[in-house]
Amino acid sequence: MIENNSLHRRSFLKGLNSAQLNAISLAAEEVTYEKGTLVFADDAPANMLCILLEGGVDLFYVTEGQDGKLRELVVGEINPDEAFGLSALTEPHVYRAAARAARRSRVLTIDAVKLRALCAGDLQLAYQLALRVAETAMDRLYSTQIMLAAEAI
Amino acid sequence: MIENNSLHRRSFLKGLNSAQLNAISLAAEEVTYEKGTLVFADDAPANMLCILLEGGVDLFYVTEGQDGKLRELVVGEINPDEAFGLSALTEPHVYRAAARAARRSRVLTIDAVKLRALCAGDLQLAYQLALRVAETAMDRLYSTQIMLAAEAI
Repeated sequence: MIENNSLHRRSFLKGLNSAQLNAISLAAEEVTYEKGTLVFADDAPANMLCILLEGGVDLFYVTEGQDGKLRELVVGEINPDEAFGLSALTEPHVYRAAARAARRSRVLTIDAVKLRALCAGDLQLAYQLALRVAETAMDRLYSTQIMLAAEAI
Repeated sequence: MIENNSLHRRSFLKGLNSAQLNAISLAAEEVTYEKGTLVFADDAPANMLCILLEGGVDLFYVTEGQDGKLRELVVGEINPDEAFGLSALTEPHVYRAAARAARRSRVLTIDAVKLRALCAGDLQLAYQLALRVAETAMDRLYSTQIMLAAEAI
């Protein structure tokens, strides 16, 4: 668990009341990842929702290039106060990209099984978090579309 | 309004009960767009949520190329049964891309002001729709990231 009083400052957790933040704090930990460390792999069960506190995290895929060699392609960059691992809150709860610390990073990790159990018993919490996932995914979709458009020019 | 009994078949409206579908049907219309017709412009107020029934819709931006000429860049393609205009359900309720019928298309349009009023009075409905927006945006983000990765190879 972590101190409850640090959670209310996180954008992703805005709109939650102190009882909800307190319940989440009991399911949360602060983890430091050294530069180059994998936070989670793609196709793995999405067992934690993450909020970056400090540092930087890259989201990436491993794909096969035309030369047959495996290449890592960064498809997103996470900045402090941004949430990632959003698949923890959407079916089928499997990460779609891998995440790695681009530099030494402090990450708030929230146990997804416990978080989903909290949501199952608190519709207002479930709604607020679903809305945050929607907003975050829409923002990320928009910036990814801009990157794609820039590639095409 | 449209016939309530056609709404329960739409993936985006799954999980809603018949009273909720009935309320939505009163705020919905079926509109046919001829090929090349604009469904909505980017930066416009997101005053309708759309579900494609038949045909095809392109999402696009207008950007300035290196030669100074304006170019339209398609950043997404909508297929039948898919929802678009998701900004109708996320703040600040402004479309981020434009949508145009790629061919003659039948679209279910739901009045966003009425839909948001229904959500304000029915937390379960608000939750279900927020979850659908989250899932749809995550799916679209994933396929856009794949397109971006393919450009980079």
